Amino acid sequence: MKTSLDPDIAARLKRTSDGLVAAIVREHGSGDVLMLAWMDDEALHRTLTTGRATYWSRSREEYWVKGATSGHHQYVKSVALDCDGDALLVTVEQVGAACHTGAANCFFDELPVTSESPTTGEQG
Amino acid sequence: MKTSLDPDIAARLKRTSDGLVAAIVREHGSGDVLMLAWMDDEALHRTLTTGRATYWSRSREEYWVKGATSGHHQYVKSVALDCDGDALLVTVEQVGAACHTGAANCFFDELPVTSESPTTGEQG
Repeated sequence: MKTSLDPDIAARLKRTSDGLVAAIVREHGSGDVLMLAWMDDEALHRTLTTGRATYWSRSREEYWVKGATSGHHQYVKSVALDCDGDALLVTVEQVGAACHTGAANCFFDELPVTSESPTTGEQG
Repeated sequence: MKTSLDPDIAARLKRTSDGLVAAIVREHGSGDVLMLAWMDDEALHRTLTTGRATYWSRSREEYWVKGATSGHHQYVKSVALDCDGDALLVTVEQVGAACHTGAANCFFDELPVTSESPTTGEQG
């Protein structure tokens, strides 16, 4: 895929078989985790150079500037790559709701945790 | 893959081509984003039923109970699935450092954001 991403950054990415890294989106100030999206090299390049969070849509197979249709813009404050290069932490100023459902964030489907205690021994 | 994951939960997952969902790990209390890991259905089942964060290691291709070798356990407080089923937000009590490098979290490689302002018009 043709991209202008800094080759030094590109060399540190560990992509899925689809060529993507996971982008965790966190709200500046509150620190709330808003959503998870996906970036290829070009989406990361656009995010870093325009200051607007830009993702790769796996379902629509196209680039997607967050807020372009919803008005729920994400202005990028910082981007950090994780220690093994397969995830980004994108800190944004979020305008309006982050989730396409209208919720403040995408993580409203709580799953049942049936044990909060360690149940087995471990080896140190 | 054989798993005992609740079929109602399994039906809501939208997996990568490798059969994985992204798991964002957040610290209970502080809300800090600690790391990103990967779960298949069985890793999610074990996480929900043992209360110990359990992942699928893409590099080692095996299940991995966080802390089993490092002692840096993650006790699961809650797990939420996102609106489109491809990401989990796992809230944990973290013992020691979350990152294998010894850092408190994995996101210490800051990338340069060269514009924080919108540079182009958009369509609503």
